[in-house]
Amino acid sequence: MNQPYQSVQWKDGTCVLLDQRRLPSSLTHVHCETVDAVVEGIRTLTVRGAPAIGIAGAYGAALALGESNDEGQFVTGLARLGAARPTAVNLSWALNRSRARWEQEGKPFGPAGVDCLVQEAHCIVEEEVRSNVEMARLGADRIDGRGVAITYCNTGPLATAGVGTALGVLIEAHRQGKIEEVLVPETRPLLQGMRLTAWELAQHDIPFRVICDNQIPQAMARQRVVVAAVGADRVAANGDAANKIGTYGLAVLAHTHDCPFFVVAPSSTFDLSLPTGAQIPIEERAPAEVLGILGDNAHPNPVAVGNPAFDVTPAKWITALVCERGVIQPPNADTVAEVVQRR
Amino acid sequence: MNQPYQSVQWKDGTCVLLDQRRLPSSLTHVHCETVDAVVEGIRTLTVRGAPAIGIAGAYGAALALGESNDEGQFVTGLARLGAARPTAVNLSWALNRSRARWEQEGKPFGPAGVDCLVQEAHCIVEEEVRSNVEMARLGADRIDGRGVAITYCNTGPLATAGVGTALGVLIEAHRQGKIEEVLVPETRPLLQGMRLTAWELAQHDIPFRVICDNQIPQAMARQRVVVAAVGADRVAANGDAANKIGTYGLAVLAHTHDCPFFVVAPSSTFDLSLPTGAQIPIEERAPAEVLGILGDNAHPNPVAVGNPAFDVTPAKWITALVCERGVIQPPNADTVAEVVQRR
Repeated sequence: MNQPYQSVQWKDGTCVLLDQRRLPSSLTHVHCETVDAVVEGIRTLTVRGAPAIGIAGAYGAALALGESNDEGQFVTGLARLGAARPTAVNLSWALNRSRARWEQEGKPFGPAGVDCLVQEAHCIVEEEVRSNVEMARLGADRIDGRGVAITYCNTGPLATAGVGTALGVLIEAHRQGKIEEVLVPETRPLLQGMRLTAWELAQHDIPFRVICDNQIPQAMARQRVVVAAVGADRVAANGDAANKIGTYGLAVLAHTHDCPFFVVAPSSTFDLSLPTGAQIPIEERAPAEVLGILGDNAHPNPVAVGNPAFDVTPAKWITALVCERGVIQPPNADTVAEVVQRR
Repeated sequence: MNQPYQSVQWKDGTCVLLDQRRLPSSLTHVHCETVDAVVEGIRTLTVRGAPAIGIAGAYGAALALGESNDEGQFVTGLARLGAARPTAVNLSWALNRSRARWEQEGKPFGPAGVDCLVQEAHCIVEEEVRSNVEMARLGADRIDGRGVAITYCNTGPLATAGVGTALGVLIEAHRQGKIEEVLVPETRPLLQGMRLTAWELAQHDIPFRVICDNQIPQAMARQRVVVAAVGADRVAANGDAANKIGTYGLAVLAHTHDCPFFVVAPSSTFDLSLPTGAQIPIEERAPAEVLGILGDNAHPNPVAVGNPAFDVTPAKWITALVCERGVIQPPNADTVAEVVQRR
């Protein structure tokens, strides 16, 4: 399950991001030598995927420390990183963890401080790699029968540090002979499915078919879909899950067609401080991401556009939350607390 | 409710199509002087929308007669037109009607034959204009309260000869003060919503917002949507309706959120020869329509793509079929037969 590519790496004192905006046509990297560069990388989706954003944040924290002469500067740097994108909780989770480690070490500045934060980021990476493997195993075990799988957006190695969250489950289930083909919704507006998931499945030699997002319902009605598996950007205490816009519809359609709907998310994606999904901040992105498909100035007059990057799926539509600490089924405040607080 | 543009016209012995591929950036026309040109215009979506395709077919029949010296040639011309696109029944309906009129007139060839078929096409246009007005009235009357409306693909004047089917209902409901804003899903892959419906609503000064198709579920959950109204390409005897891919999902989501779901279709769109929607032929179009969004050769290897242009919504998810002969609610074999066979 080793990947020939990594979404985020630390090399020679810089945070190196695989440039996901340019896939699949070219595989290039962006070298971030400053906090600002990491913020820009997260904001522009050079790196995306909740766990990968968290890791970029952790290495960004090391850069923030290197740019700081006092605690105030460091905290400001962390805040700049934390504000890069609002929805994925992995970012603030990683920054909080980096800061806690730094405080534990006696708040060192200079090379010693940078080194302690790089080590903490490496730890996060190692834990995510292991949690990916564990979620893949737990999720694949819960798939019954053999047939078509459907996923959404991108949740593979590009979105994480390991084999992926939902895509990790499907890769493992395919290895076990349970998956004939993966349906890959393109995921408008930025096409993470068509560009990234299709590319990753090709790397793994897993049969797949790219579809427009609006083909999901008919595919559910006419094909034997044995599982719909997605990732998450933030899961509230009651099991409500924010994920890429469109996920909620997939959940409703899966329910309508008696298809299991799995949200696959490591414990770092859970935010037990929020009682329900209604409190999750939803990022609204630029209209140009939607209208750009037509080229510049295609519309003679300004056009109002909605572009929320995420939606919230209520726990009642989720068959199971697959976390590395256990499978949460059915998801509710009690089952979430029981599994996520497990050690 | 007069339109400053018409999707299909007859001018100086040619069938003139408003080139819907180039909207909204430019308003140009294609002049079809031959059957082949009309077939190409239908196949390439220069003209689209089930009623408009029927009208193009009717004028195409006149061109077919002009190209024929005997009945065999004429019948072959009609068959070429009928094969241009498979799903919308309005095309074969119009061609059958043209042929019946020609037979009724004693099978004239030359200018007299062409003239009788042009007159028949004019009749179809006039009937569709009247039926659009009637459906707009019947549909708008059935909308309760005031709020947001959602539509899908394009069902306005561009898709018809008059004010439109579903969009005609929304235009009339807006006039009555029932609609604050229309949500316009872009309608991948060819963006008939973003390109055509947005343009038409702007022409009518009706507030609207363009959204990606995958935003529909969250909009349903978070906004006060008083109606979801769509058109149809073919309605079977039991009320199952084929329409643009994604319609089925919109119907399921509308049901989940207690939102009335109207299919607005003139009697020319009903195919009582098909017992259910399972018998409706679904056109599969070229993968390039889906992948083209990335530019040429973005994927290093060939990618499997699904591109069905339509899906089928079972009657059980349809609140009402709005036909010019009456509102069919709830739709089933008995209510469909009762209303559609009404004179």
